[in-house]
Amino acid sequence: MAYFYNISKIKYEGAQSKDPLAFKFYNPEEQINGKSMEELMRFGVAYWHTFTEDLSDPFGVGTAQRPWDKYSDPMEKAKARVEAAFEFFEKLGVPYFCFHDYDIAPEGKNLKETLENQDIIVDMIEDHMKDSKVKLLWNTVNNFTNPMFVHGASTSNNADVFAYSAAKVKKGLEVGKRLGAESYVFWGGREGYESLLNTNMGLELDNLARFFHMANDYAKEIGFDAQFLIEPKPKEPTSHQYDFDVAHGFAFLQKYGLQDVFKFNIEANHATLAGHSFEHELHYARINGMLGSVDANQGHPHLGWDTDEFPSDLYSTTLAMYEILKNGGLEKGGLNFDAKVRRTSFKPEDLFKAHIVGMDSFAIGAKVAQRLLDDKALENIIDNRYSSYNDGVGKEIVSGNTDFKKLQDYALGIDKIEHESGNVEVIKSILNQYLVTTLTQG
Amino acid sequence: MAYFYNISKIKYEGAQSKDPLAFKFYNPEEQINGKSMEELMRFGVAYWHTFTEDLSDPFGVGTAQRPWDKYSDPMEKAKARVEAAFEFFEKLGVPYFCFHDYDIAPEGKNLKETLENQDIIVDMIEDHMKDSKVKLLWNTVNNFTNPMFVHGASTSNNADVFAYSAAKVKKGLEVGKRLGAESYVFWGGREGYESLLNTNMGLELDNLARFFHMANDYAKEIGFDAQFLIEPKPKEPTSHQYDFDVAHGFAFLQKYGLQDVFKFNIEANHATLAGHSFEHELHYARINGMLGSVDANQGHPHLGWDTDEFPSDLYSTTLAMYEILKNGGLEKGGLNFDAKVRRTSFKPEDLFKAHIVGMDSFAIGAKVAQRLLDDKALENIIDNRYSSYNDGVGKEIVSGNTDFKKLQDYALGIDKIEHESGNVEVIKSILNQYLVTTLTQG
Amino acid sequence: MAYFYNISKIKYEGAQSKDPLAFKFYNPEEQINGKSMEELMRFGVAYWHTFTEDLSDPFGVGTAQRPWDKYSDPMEKAKARVEAAFEFFEKLGVPYFCFHDYDIAPEGKNLKETLENQDIIVDMIEDHMKDSKVKLLWNTVNNFTNPMFVHGASTSNNADVFAYSAAKVKKGLEVGKRLGAESYVFWGGREGYESLLNTNMGLELDNLARFFHMANDYAKEIGFDAQFLIEPKPKEPTSHQYDFDVAHGFAFLQKYGLQDVFKFNIEANHATLAGHSFEHELHYARINGMLGSVDANQGHPHLGWDTDEFPSDLYSTTLAMYEILKNGGLEKGGLNFDAKVRRTSFKPEDLFKAHIVGMDSFAIGAKVAQRLLDDKALENIIDNRYSSYNDGVGKEIVSGNTDFKKLQDYALGIDKIEHESGNVEVIKSILNQYLVTTLTQG
Amino acid sequence: MAYFYNISKIKYEGAQSKDPLAFKFYNPEEQINGKSMEELMRFGVAYWHTFTEDLSDPFGVGTAQRPWDKYSDPMEKAKARVEAAFEFFEKLGVPYFCFHDYDIAPEGKNLKETLENQDIIVDMIEDHMKDSKVKLLWNTVNNFTNPMFVHGASTSNNADVFAYSAAKVKKGLEVGKRLGAESYVFWGGREGYESLLNTNMGLELDNLARFFHMANDYAKEIGFDAQFLIEPKPKEPTSHQYDFDVAHGFAFLQKYGLQDVFKFNIEANHATLAGHSFEHELHYARINGMLGSVDANQGHPHLGWDTDEFPSDLYSTTLAMYEILKNGGLEKGGLNFDAKVRRTSFKPEDLFKAHIVGMDSFAIGAKVAQRLLDDKALENIIDNRYSSYNDGVGKEIVSGNTDFKKLQDYALGIDKIEHESGNVEVIKSILNQYLVTTLTQG
Repeated sequence: MAYFYNISKIKYEGAQSKDPLAFKFYNPEEQINGKSMEELMRFGVAYWHTFTEDLSDPFGVGTAQRPWDKYSDPMEKAKARVEAAFEFFEKLGVPYFCFHDYDIAPEGKNLKETLENQDIIVDMIEDHMKDSKVKLLWNTVNNFTNPMFVHGASTSNNADVFAYSAAKVKKGLEVGKRLGAESYVFWGGREGYESLLNTNMGLELDNLARFFHMANDYAKEIGFDAQFLIEPKPKEPTSHQYDFDVAHGFAFLQKYGLQDVFKFNIEANHATLAGHSFEHELHYARINGMLGSVDANQGHPHLGWDTDEFPSDLYSTTLAMYEILKNGGLEKGGLNFDAKVRRTSFKPEDLFKAHIVGMDSFAIGAKVAQRLLDDKALENIIDNRYSSYNDGVGKEIVSGNTDFKKLQDYALGIDKIEHESGNVEVIKSILNQYLVTTLTQG
Repeated sequence: MAYFYNISKIKYEGAQSKDPLAFKFYNPEEQINGKSMEELMRFGVAYWHTFTEDLSDPFGVGTAQRPWDKYSDPMEKAKARVEAAFEFFEKLGVPYFCFHDYDIAPEGKNLKETLENQDIIVDMIEDHMKDSKVKLLWNTVNNFTNPMFVHGASTSNNADVFAYSAAKVKKGLEVGKRLGAESYVFWGGREGYESLLNTNMGLELDNLARFFHMANDYAKEIGFDAQFLIEPKPKEPTSHQYDFDVAHGFAFLQKYGLQDVFKFNIEANHATLAGHSFEHELHYARINGMLGSVDANQGHPHLGWDTDEFPSDLYSTTLAMYEILKNGGLEKGGLNFDAKVRRTSFKPEDLFKAHIVGMDSFAIGAKVAQRLLDDKALENIIDNRYSSYNDGVGKEIVSGNTDFKKLQDYALGIDKIEHESGNVEVIKSILNQYLVTTLTQG
Repeated sequence: MAYFYNISKIKYEGAQSKDPLAFKFYNPEEQINGKSMEELMRFGVAYWHTFTEDLSDPFGVGTAQRPWDKYSDPMEKAKARVEAAFEFFEKLGVPYFCFHDYDIAPEGKNLKETLENQDIIVDMIEDHMKDSKVKLLWNTVNNFTNPMFVHGASTSNNADVFAYSAAKVKKGLEVGKRLGAESYVFWGGREGYESLLNTNMGLELDNLARFFHMANDYAKEIGFDAQFLIEPKPKEPTSHQYDFDVAHGFAFLQKYGLQDVFKFNIEANHATLAGHSFEHELHYARINGMLGSVDANQGHPHLGWDTDEFPSDLYSTTLAMYEILKNGGLEKGGLNFDAKVRRTSFKPEDLFKAHIVGMDSFAIGAKVAQRLLDDKALENIIDNRYSSYNDGVGKEIVSGNTDFKKLQDYALGIDKIEHESGNVEVIKSILNQYLVTTLTQG
Repeated sequence: MAYFYNISKIKYEGAQSKDPLAFKFYNPEEQINGKSMEELMRFGVAYWHTFTEDLSDPFGVGTAQRPWDKYSDPMEKAKARVEAAFEFFEKLGVPYFCFHDYDIAPEGKNLKETLENQDIIVDMIEDHMKDSKVKLLWNTVNNFTNPMFVHGASTSNNADVFAYSAAKVKKGLEVGKRLGAESYVFWGGREGYESLLNTNMGLELDNLARFFHMANDYAKEIGFDAQFLIEPKPKEPTSHQYDFDVAHGFAFLQKYGLQDVFKFNIEANHATLAGHSFEHELHYARINGMLGSVDANQGHPHLGWDTDEFPSDLYSTTLAMYEILKNGGLEKGGLNFDAKVRRTSFKPEDLFKAHIVGMDSFAIGAKVAQRLLDDKALENIIDNRYSSYNDGVGKEIVSGNTDFKKLQDYALGIDKIEHESGNVEVIKSILNQYLVTTLTQG
């Protein structure tokens, strides 16, 4: 059956199209640096925001019009959502999707029934995947919604919750293996604290590491070779999340000997809430070999919470694609739209329109970024700026052939240090120039 | 004599130019909606950021290379700056400039000498203006740098400082009249508080209003018909500035009967520090008939102070120009670059490059905004959204022909309220589409 | 029937008590400046946070254990909540409560049934009030939760929603009159915008003013003499709320001729989200004669949304009580706990404990503030700081007997301006000294 | 000679004293947990804020009245500052001080002269230290003020600047050894970026690590056994500092094998600018064995830059002292007042008054924190909350004797998970109770 009966498969119509249900810039077959846009960007649909989200907020109930939610029986509703989801994937033409366990199947009256519910829906998803090109980018489990997780999951003060969380992640790993997930994500959920005054942070972090080691052991045991990913977020729902940003995660992974097992799933809005730019987090992860996947969305510059807007800021998409292209793509990761339509965009077709906006915005970003790279527009500037490390004292420094005494001797002989302008204003203007002219240069 | 001897008059070379010393988008003669770009945007150079700023910051001394600062005698330096300024204006091809009293002439050993110093430099500026097309957009006085203003100027706890401030503004009004200033600006400087605990806010605000009334009286007396402007800023240098944002200023002006005398000079970075977007402040001032002039710059999204960057964000310049075009232009105001080159952009030519970036960015914004208006791309959406107020109960509401009883009767008869999607995602995408295609559509 | 069967009436036990179910500092009969603490602070319980809130958040379902929510029938549940509420008021010993229409009675299948539901519950509340000392501080209506209000209420783009909102406020005014509400609150709810790009702000603000005028007309018509209050909030749920802060509200009220009809209900957490301190907003409202009532809560210094924590910061309660004491109390307003227990404090008894924390925190604040006033600890500092306006040129300034010419003449004769230190560090230390010693000085 | 001729040695007068030039709470000999306050807190005076700071800000020149700055010759002024400093240390009764190289001695016309200038002043300081009890808590070098460091120091794009920085730190280590510095601090200064677009972050971080390894090698070579400290700061002067917060530093140190060589110098205002509480950063460092020293100050809750206020917030000082007491003190670190008087507190005696405020605030904090510890007021709550890890499945988890399969088996058998309230509101109230009653309980 069709839930989006009035919507046809989304087509690429080019930059002049006025149709909100057409791609203007995303052309899946178009080549960028030897890859098709589809292969390069590996877009994913987030099951939670698209099929289960009702658009409630702390001041109002849901506004979303979702025909598949007409069923009151939870399993019937879950099945209808699978139908709607695959119809959506096909019509949008997106290669990947992502989900939490509770997105796809309802909790049962106990853990056993919960796991059984999942089996039923996973069977159904598996069937649909046979007839579809869509693949599972990553899965994860929701260890934060149920009141059980009120004090955290693997960092709960209650050991039973740790055990329960482990049981759920075990299933998550099995589901991921079965459905061929390319990555597996650990978002902190309620792993953090409401108040330091009642928290044993040392024990909680040790337990979090124990949990990750056990997860890795079990994944190996069952032969699940997905890339493990930590998704940093600084705050919300807790006052202070342990995986505050990439650096916090990187410090943690190194301390507990997990840095070879994990990479990061970087979300734009989480980056900005942590006081960084999106591109900073991508860049920092990339140069440390830790850039795994991306949650593509954007925040609101004047709001202090995770707004999860669909990405439309072309500066952000351009600089993100720049990092991704420098990274040689995302390997087992992708661009997952961890984004929701605004509460005021409640119609079913808004789901298509918003994904189109996101895909078009990244398509523009990809084209602009690639042209910047092709022209070495920024790279030549940077290479030139640091050229003093290519010979002389600079080369001694980077090759480790010097020390403070030699450097002081050298410095005593310096007559005058000359600098070049950093040229930041001009460089921003180059970015603008590429932005407003690239699309019409082919 | 020439201070920028290696720089020629800046020319318009078009979107493909790679020359950082050429306009790529700003073409002063190009027409937008019946005005030339020059007439529409009325760009101004800020004397303080361009000719007296040394690029020091709280952690380091100045880096700026300014050949005209070679003079150690303050008056010689002041004269050299005038020479440099007019050379700069001519080569940049900018129609306006703005200054504080202390930008153009040094303080003397007492007020009398200070005023005399100004006379000497104003004579010189007047001479230069005769031979130049450049005009004075606005002037103001600096009542915040001298230690005398440590506790405020017209809101100082010390009545002598109030008197001293009045003496300086009196001169400022006379100078403005003499040089034909089109507006006169009151930026709060230190009018605010360090701590509420030692502050009599009631008295300070009363005194601020008294000061403004006296200024208005004196301007009338001498026949100076410039538009008076308040420039809001939420914080810095004080912890809480009284003219926090446009709404604070508007509340103040109404309370003290000054709303017909003043409009606002709105600065982008001040808007964002106050938790608003730049376009919000412009829009709010516009619909209240209070949009006077613009300090064109931008802040840094992750820094909590006034960075005064040259404007390069094209979303911001487009939406600002959209408001300005809706306002029918800026009348006696203009786009003054209250912007400074980064401390890392310390070369004299960086001053040109940065202004070109700003002018080009607003030129792009103007073209995109005008095309949005020409196509009624946003206006049709808005008109359609509010069409329920054109007839029926909506018309009764806006025409004042109803009351709560009638409305309750009506509401009791409503069966179901249907809404349209707000379409925010699509609207942002329309903006993107205009941004990346307008420039190449001619 | 008893819902809090294990809890006795809360007693005052003094500063050394370890019992979380006893007041340590709030002693209702204790006199402060001629009023009992009860009369001075006029504490109110917020019906919504205490009896209907389930402690869900955007990442998790409710955790609250509320025995009265065992009923599935909405009217049965509503009645049980009334029972629980009055039991709570009596046991806590609080003199006031506040509610929205939807807090007390469920929406019906249409407006008629909704209003009838209210009548039934209002009857019941009226009965309870006869046997109780508790009074209604203020009531209001919830025009934001229902999807109908997705685009605003009196600022909706849909005129039917304006009418529906009016119908509900009409009833709210009638309910307020019937139950003897001392004030009536207008919190903006969704009166603001998601995006400027699809908003007609001018029309929306005009409509908001029309709505307020009609409300005032109807209140007069029915003889409801409650104080009307606007409750400012800068953002959330919309991206930009029209009643951003007190100054925005004050500008609006003056523009539309409503400044004599309204005062402000100031919420601590809304103040801080707007970039002000709580005491700033109280102070600004006070000196403009607009301080009406207080929503007593606090925000989290590192979270960017409305956390509505129970007030415990003693600096904040002290400085708030300082303003309230300077205001001569709150007249028809009070200290309403617009505060909710944390999601991790989900037990019924946590509701008592949290209110005790709030009341004790304000009791400490009141005692410290009164001692500061008794000793003129801050007032003498301020009077002395501004003494230059008591005679000489200062007196000329404040009495309006001078002008810019006279002031310049005077300033030309000033030899040197001497300032005193602002002493901010010492003043903060005085506040500390009062804080840590007042409670044990009797 | 005496610069503070009108000020006597500061005495302890007790909580009722009204004298701004007396300690009310800091009594150096008073014992806290077996240490004198002096030994526990190890207060230090920051040479830069106290003897060289002129209280200029970006909008105004210096206001500070500093009699020792009457000398125009830089070396004469430097010597006068040493005299003033030791007079200040003695009169304040503070055991430590801290400085940058350029605080104590002016730059010369070249590096050689700069180093010679330092030798002269270090000789003088050494002489003064012989006659004084004051010791050097830590020293550092200023590699950020000179225009040479415009693009960074050890992360400059210019290798000559790396060499110059090394030369200066080499001297700094020698000076530290000579004067018996207990620690040596590396604050990032301009180690960060203005814009990612022109930055090679990978090379810059590698170079920073190379620099630290060379510093460590040289310290070992000369037998300087001070504790090395990194001082994190998120932003300012650069847009993004590399040592953003403790976690960033910890990730960096581990990556480059430096985690055994460095600890952290944690500044309150830097913590809050990074989105953490001060106590969070102390706690995080402590549980990772990396808490070295503290820069005691505070930020302003509504200002987005480093205000470096003298600490007066008693919540902050109490929770800081709580962490320090839990850490067993600070070993080679101390509480250095990296704090400056407000620009409005410009009198010489304000320097004393502000330090007294800071010392008294930490003294109150220490007493409250110790009483909390003595009573195990928080520790019992925490121990009880996590007791599920003491036996059963919890013990299996922390001892590493379980895995996901065993945990799932266990979880399948859980009937219901019961939680206790987190009691956050009550815990905050306990803190308040200790705050307002401790000081008068002896």
